[in-house]
Amino acid sequence: MLTYKAPLRDIKFLMNEMLDYQAHYKTLDNGAAADPESVDMILEGFADFAENVLSPLYQPADAEGCTFKDGEVTTPTGFKEAYQQFVEGGWQGISYPEEFGGMNLPMSLNLIKSEMMGTANWPWAMYPGLTTGSVNTILQYGDAEQKSTYLPKLISGEWSGTMCLTEAQCGTDLNQMKTRAVPNDDGSYAITGSKIFISAGEHDLTENIIHIVLARLPDAPAGTKGISLFIVPKFLPNADGEADKRNAVVCGSIEHKMGISSSATCVINFDGATGFLIGEANKGLKAMFTYMNTARIGTGIQGLAHIELSFQNSLPYAKERRSMRALSGVKEPNQPADAIIHHADVRRMLLTQKAFAEGARSMIYHTARYADKLAEAVAKDDETAIKKWDDKMGFFTPILKGFLTELGIEAAKHGQQIYGGHGYIKESGMELIARDARIATLYEGTTGVQALDLLGRKVLLHGGGKAIRDYTASIMKWCGEYALDKDMRKYVWVLTKLCAEWNMLTARLLLTARKDRDIVSAASDDFLMYSGYVMMAYHWARMAAVSFDKIKNGGEQPKEFYIAKTQTAEFYFEKLLPRSSAHAESMTVPSETMMQMDIDHFAFLD
Amino acid sequence: MLTYKAPLRDIKFLMNEMLDYQAHYKTLDNGAAADPESVDMILEGFADFAENVLSPLYQPADAEGCTFKDGEVTTPTGFKEAYQQFVEGGWQGISYPEEFGGMNLPMSLNLIKSEMMGTANWPWAMYPGLTTGSVNTILQYGDAEQKSTYLPKLISGEWSGTMCLTEAQCGTDLNQMKTRAVPNDDGSYAITGSKIFISAGEHDLTENIIHIVLARLPDAPAGTKGISLFIVPKFLPNADGEADKRNAVVCGSIEHKMGISSSATCVINFDGATGFLIGEANKGLKAMFTYMNTARIGTGIQGLAHIELSFQNSLPYAKERRSMRALSGVKEPNQPADAIIHHADVRRMLLTQKAFAEGARSMIYHTARYADKLAEAVAKDDETAIKKWDDKMGFFTPILKGFLTELGIEAAKHGQQIYGGHGYIKESGMELIARDARIATLYEGTTGVQALDLLGRKVLLHGGGKAIRDYTASIMKWCGEYALDKDMRKYVWVLTKLCAEWNMLTARLLLTARKDRDIVSAASDDFLMYSGYVMMAYHWARMAAVSFDKIKNGGEQPKEFYIAKTQTAEFYFEKLLPRSSAHAESMTVPSETMMQMDIDHFAFLD
Repeated sequence: MLTYKAPLRDIKFLMNEMLDYQAHYKTLDNGAAADPESVDMILEGFADFAENVLSPLYQPADAEGCTFKDGEVTTPTGFKEAYQQFVEGGWQGISYPEEFGGMNLPMSLNLIKSEMMGTANWPWAMYPGLTTGSVNTILQYGDAEQKSTYLPKLISGEWSGTMCLTEAQCGTDLNQMKTRAVPNDDGSYAITGSKIFISAGEHDLTENIIHIVLARLPDAPAGTKGISLFIVPKFLPNADGEADKRNAVVCGSIEHKMGISSSATCVINFDGATGFLIGEANKGLKAMFTYMNTARIGTGIQGLAHIELSFQNSLPYAKERRSMRALSGVKEPNQPADAIIHHADVRRMLLTQKAFAEGARSMIYHTARYADKLAEAVAKDDETAIKKWDDKMGFFTPILKGFLTELGIEAAKHGQQIYGGHGYIKESGMELIARDARIATLYEGTTGVQALDLLGRKVLLHGGGKAIRDYTASIMKWCGEYALDKDMRKYVWVLTKLCAEWNMLTARLLLTARKDRDIVSAASDDFLMYSGYVMMAYHWARMAAVSFDKIKNGGEQPKEFYIAKTQTAEFYFEKLLPRSSAHAESMTVPSETMMQMDIDHFAFLD
Repeated sequence: MLTYKAPLRDIKFLMNEMLDYQAHYKTLDNGAAADPESVDMILEGFADFAENVLSPLYQPADAEGCTFKDGEVTTPTGFKEAYQQFVEGGWQGISYPEEFGGMNLPMSLNLIKSEMMGTANWPWAMYPGLTTGSVNTILQYGDAEQKSTYLPKLISGEWSGTMCLTEAQCGTDLNQMKTRAVPNDDGSYAITGSKIFISAGEHDLTENIIHIVLARLPDAPAGTKGISLFIVPKFLPNADGEADKRNAVVCGSIEHKMGISSSATCVINFDGATGFLIGEANKGLKAMFTYMNTARIGTGIQGLAHIELSFQNSLPYAKERRSMRALSGVKEPNQPADAIIHHADVRRMLLTQKAFAEGARSMIYHTARYADKLAEAVAKDDETAIKKWDDKMGFFTPILKGFLTELGIEAAKHGQQIYGGHGYIKESGMELIARDARIATLYEGTTGVQALDLLGRKVLLHGGGKAIRDYTASIMKWCGEYALDKDMRKYVWVLTKLCAEWNMLTARLLLTARKDRDIVSAASDDFLMYSGYVMMAYHWARMAAVSFDKIKNGGEQPKEFYIAKTQTAEFYFEKLLPRSSAHAESMTVPSETMMQMDIDHFAFLD
């Protein structure tokens, strides 16, 4: 049976000892309330809810799944009660403006909430998670009336939201989107079309569901320049703002999936449903890009969630399960065999999980500060600031989403390997983590889409590699401070070399791409993974530097926490970072190696 | 809906054009019947049964699963009829002696049968597959009466078999095994204990099930030196050799698993069940090692099976699904978007699957020839020859099992990625391949166990790296022939360098292990994967060499088959082989990096 404990010590290490969240919060309009005592209290609250309410529901809910009947979805036993508690705690609104009923705390706290709740029970957390997408969209693009109609109910959690983008023929390529919006006489629109893969599209947790729908106006230009956004409520609000008349939007079916079976994935059919244009006509795709940055950090958090959960549940098993004797001699003479944690190969897997979990957390918490800034800019409706912070975040989001979710799959795999055959049996829960982790590299844009977004859009198109130059410059500056440090120098020299290589590879791809456009796609996966490993190395170096300092100059108790950090940093640099060499070598291979094969010659099966 | 076509062109390329199976068959006592025409006919027969009978059952059977009630297991709809056809075709016995009703064909044909049937429907193929384990054991260790009692029924397929090794407290570590065997007055034994994870332990396909059970005699030495083997039939045969009295062996339950849900994984309880000692008392573990070599090749075939199935079903989707335009310009102007096979990153995934599938097949078909020799030695009861061929195979089996099953997981992952969100939906079947592939790195010894077997036992213990010296010497000899070949030289120089590195790494690990025993475990996974990638590179170089020759000097039609081979070889060397560098770098890291962390400091969750 899977269990979850919020890793508060590690969370506080990042917030207080490494990333100085308090100093950062002081720069925010809404940072004052996030004083150390309040933050501690909030974190304890998240932890308590995640550990005691959400975690016990996770495995039973997977076995039960969602049920679909006559257009209605019933969520698994306990989901509704947990959601009710969530609403009563005011958790949905912690980072949203007070004028709409929120607590107006920094957005980073909302992300940390997602981490804890999502690690305990990812499929449950998707229901309130999707609401965040619709709230953010309405906050940024809605008019005053839309805000006052929808935000209070969404922010309280009484209503929930969805994002309706995908159709059967297109996910990534919204050019092919067909859903139509025809103006009604009253200023509303009649929305007609069918959307698929709509998470939380229908369920029994809330009295109303507010769909944000991408559709085309009759006179819209072809392709993505003709996409507009609409608010389509399941029940149309009446004059008092209460859910009233049923709209022509119905759930046609739910998908049978590999995992996240307690999260309803719906076909949503719009049959002349009443919708309300939000934002400018035909500018829907731009709005979606802002949404996607946030959604992709959210999915990056799923990577962390499954790494952490797999690690937490592998560790006790590795200490309890006994098999063979340690190669270096008997470790538990009074037992019939040694615990498997005494085998180096098992430790390799545990330390991989640990290094990934803590490295991922550090990468996310670093980026979460930009999310705070972006949310502040949105609250002020400051276009320049919105663009600035969205751009800043934009470099990190494909790495968090693309790289960390791939690590989630790997960590879950190690968890199953540590359990041996028992890792394949449902009872252990390790296979559930593997199945649930698997969606994260597929939705919100596959890893391939993230990789192309990173290399093509964020790196090569913008300033010819500027993002890499800027980021590596900041790493180099940091390295400079530790170049003579006895403990740290081995890490900073490795990092320095990698920064040079990262720039060189980027420059080389930029040059190659002038003649060989396909190289951008051919190299993208390697570039993404390379970037991820190097970025995580920087985070591990920083965590090691803080830890060495605390070991020498005193920090929180126990000291062993810091020692373990430095040992994990060493493991990361020695055993995991070498993977970057393989990606570096593979990324410069000409695209011809992939493109030369004739489509009809991939297989000869007739 | 998944489909399967037997890749006969590729199979024949290996058998006829690269590995010269006909010349090899001429060296075998039982090779004469395997003339080209007969082999073709047999392959066509396998293919027809796999494609038309087994493949259509695969997905529906997964949804249905096995049912358990009152000790009885019901297999999914259609399994029984398919099995009946299999028995009628005489397929179970193709590689077993005629005196017991078999066709006495070379064992390699049995492995190729497993490949085709297993690719079409792995869980179904496990039922006859487990019988192979018990047949091999009885053939090699049974006395004349045991052979005549059990082999005809097992070889015809009327009865099936199992291997009962694992218990709740131990899988790998058979030291901890507790099942007891107490002598009865009539020379039989009363077997008492509980075995878990017994594939095909109970089902409705055959009238009797013959369990091979590991148990301890009352006076047995402790540990693995006190393990004996017993034949425990579900129904005891009467004087006429027919299934008669029910034995005290019952299925307690079946497991609920991540995948292979149509293969019954049973708890088998022995409650004073009547068993018959097979082979020498207390020598059961040694017998199991022979069994395991064969079983591990069988599981290596599962790696190939899932790679191939994933590739075959990814390819048509990549040609049909349209998304975005190719980076190098529009490829399908009359379509709303280009087929995703025009994106280099999608090709990277397809070519990875293709390179893995054909590389894996080549590795397996190479080793299968040793299986022919081993089977011949067993048939002759030639101890020296058995040891010789078992040793030869012993170097390859952990690589086939450990490496190829890991690639199976990766290929299945690519398949899901190519399908995007649709790859997560049960309907597409891609998630089924991923779930079923997942068991292969867990059963028959986890990847960690294979890695330790390879590095510790097969490489370092035997002649201090002799296996690597011998194998690389044979590669070097082959390379020498192509050193000046214009097409091949780029491959042979890479291989030459890798052979040198492989030896150097082995020598270094041997030296390190003298002082640091844990290095053997610490380095084992990297050593396994490194060995796999280098071995597969050798196979790709050989396939390329044959193909270049056929392109120049004429071969079978179509010529494009050979061109695709050389293009895939190029892809393998350039895009996949670089992974060996990362493993080389990581494998020499001192074990301290893994061992230094105190057990209690892996996590600080309180």
